[in-house]
Amino acid sequence: MSKFWSDIVHKLTPYVPGEQPKLNNLVKLNTNENPYGPSPKVIEALKAEAAETLRLYPDPNSDALKAAIAHAYHLNPSQVFVGNGSDEVLAHVFQALLKHSKPLLFPDITYSFYPVYCGLYGIDYQTVPLTEDFSININDYNRPNGGIIFPNPNAPTGIPLALAKIEQLLQSNPESVVVVDEAYVDFGTESAVGLINQYPNLLVTHTLSKARSLAGLRVGYAMGSPDLIEALIRVKDSFNSYPIDRFASAGAIAAIQDTEYFEKTCKQVIGTRDALVNDLVKLGFEVLPSGANFIFAKHPACAGAELTTKLRERSIIVRHFKSPERVSPYLRITIGTDEQSKLLINALSEIL
Amino acid sequence: MSKFWSDIVHKLTPYVPGEQPKLNNLVKLNTNENPYGPSPKVIEALKAEAAETLRLYPDPNSDALKAAIAHAYHLNPSQVFVGNGSDEVLAHVFQALLKHSKPLLFPDITYSFYPVYCGLYGIDYQTVPLTEDFSININDYNRPNGGIIFPNPNAPTGIPLALAKIEQLLQSNPESVVVVDEAYVDFGTESAVGLINQYPNLLVTHTLSKARSLAGLRVGYAMGSPDLIEALIRVKDSFNSYPIDRFASAGAIAAIQDTEYFEKTCKQVIGTRDALVNDLVKLGFEVLPSGANFIFAKHPACAGAELTTKLRERSIIVRHFKSPERVSPYLRITIGTDEQSKLLINALSEIL
Repeated sequence: MSKFWSDIVHKLTPYVPGEQPKLNNLVKLNTNENPYGPSPKVIEALKAEAAETLRLYPDPNSDALKAAIAHAYHLNPSQVFVGNGSDEVLAHVFQALLKHSKPLLFPDITYSFYPVYCGLYGIDYQTVPLTEDFSININDYNRPNGGIIFPNPNAPTGIPLALAKIEQLLQSNPESVVVVDEAYVDFGTESAVGLINQYPNLLVTHTLSKARSLAGLRVGYAMGSPDLIEALIRVKDSFNSYPIDRFASAGAIAAIQDTEYFEKTCKQVIGTRDALVNDLVKLGFEVLPSGANFIFAKHPACAGAELTTKLRERSIIVRHFKSPERVSPYLRITIGTDEQSKLLINALSEIL
Repeated sequence: MSKFWSDIVHKLTPYVPGEQPKLNNLVKLNTNENPYGPSPKVIEALKAEAAETLRLYPDPNSDALKAAIAHAYHLNPSQVFVGNGSDEVLAHVFQALLKHSKPLLFPDITYSFYPVYCGLYGIDYQTVPLTEDFSININDYNRPNGGIIFPNPNAPTGIPLALAKIEQLLQSNPESVVVVDEAYVDFGTESAVGLINQYPNLLVTHTLSKARSLAGLRVGYAMGSPDLIEALIRVKDSFNSYPIDRFASAGAIAAIQDTEYFEKTCKQVIGTRDALVNDLVKLGFEVLPSGANFIFAKHPACAGAELTTKLRERSIIVRHFKSPERVSPYLRITIGTDEQSKLLINALSEIL
């Protein structure tokens, strides 16, 4: 508390990201990073940027990156917005498109950054409870709203929502922006990108931190009608002219273009996930159905907090959310390599 | 205009950055970049980051970078905040520290992003006219205010304000945050960093885009009392957990640590500036005194817009501001190499 702070600062409850431990040799399954490094073509493109040209500003509009994304998703560059990680993209989305007189709607169990953005920008919101089986029932969103946002697959549950349901939601909310946050979509969930040309109220956000193995580079993007994208550009150009540095641009372009490597590593992660789910079920875990690179699992004999602590003692870190109460029995486990799955299963067998 | 936009978007007047031309072979003296590339140690550090570790998030708190900056300026890391370029740092400063019931004050001729931030965050402001010779008279700031911000040296004039004057301003405004935006301070202006331990209301912002030759990497920082820094961290953690990517962190640390290279290149730029001012004066230009890596100059026989166009025809780009009226006769010319100065002087001799 300080006389120097703007009022808003006193009221903020900042987001707390998962731990980025400074120790090595941990089995790090807590922040949904990809166990495989980025494509060798990405590494090559990045090395080339370490040059004298760093003295010059990057392109403030990131035209080359937008063109690469547009090409990959069969869109026009005017339908693409890029930012310094999808969290920055989402921040601009909240400020530019989701502040209205009616409340924003999102699930009660979801990405915990959403209410934080609402606090930062003074956005009125209502949470909509997930059903008993932790899924989104779109009928529950049939109420006056100034926008709707949810991740697909949802976080931290990993449960995907069918594309037909998303289309229904878009149709029944023609006056509201519907944001589908597809951070984890490439691990087996259907994308809504194909609906963009039909629905001017649809915005889809992606990140390069997960399926493209570039959490360390900070690039995210949004796709939607030029009208929605223009709002984001106006806010971005009132905030920071050059959010995408030269490395981020070059690395992201190479990553978007190397479809083969991307598909191969996604397939590996999905294979490891399915095998891990089987092994966890054998140990007595209940695992929610996942379309993501993480799973949400609980064991009837051991609470989430206790399991997390005991895994940590064995150098394995997973993520545990204390609240809301419904999720506290669960662990959110990032899918690593097959080898890391084995270490996890061994540790859990020991603990249980 | 769109029904989907938040109200604020309709009212924004985004900042327009200087052109980043896609042509090569231009003498680019328009966005105050350093004519010399970054230190070889920086290039080396950056190359090492192009690796498998990019799959992992960076440190959300950028502790290593804060420690390097704190060490360089004899501060504690709790007195340092870092961001994705100083424009992002300034955006957070406006939102976290400069929105109060009384108006924010800044010069009428200054960095044109300041009123844009005010628009983005709904901050009430008043501009304070520069004196007849384009300098800041601190007595003009003796009025009720919720904060004061100005660049030192000022932009686009390049004129420095003496440290004793800044100290007076801090003393006469103990209830307000005074932000000294030192983007260009290393080219011969006295820094206010040494006053931080005495004045809890002082915040100093720096960038790596100018004197450290890293405009392409996007790193800026703020230094001030832990109380001010905490407000910035709270806003940052409500906006984007990981604004500093792995390259930005590694490159910035290496740049901050290579004092020798930094001092050598700053000295070269200052030498080129002083020689260029002499040559321009010989051609009949009036040049404002500069403590920056750019100069602000006008010629009695040729308007700023016309000179800019004619230089452009000769592949030399400088920056021209149409408004306010007082600055429209001027050119803002970035200091390049001695060779670029020669090309500029030759072109101007031809034109005039």
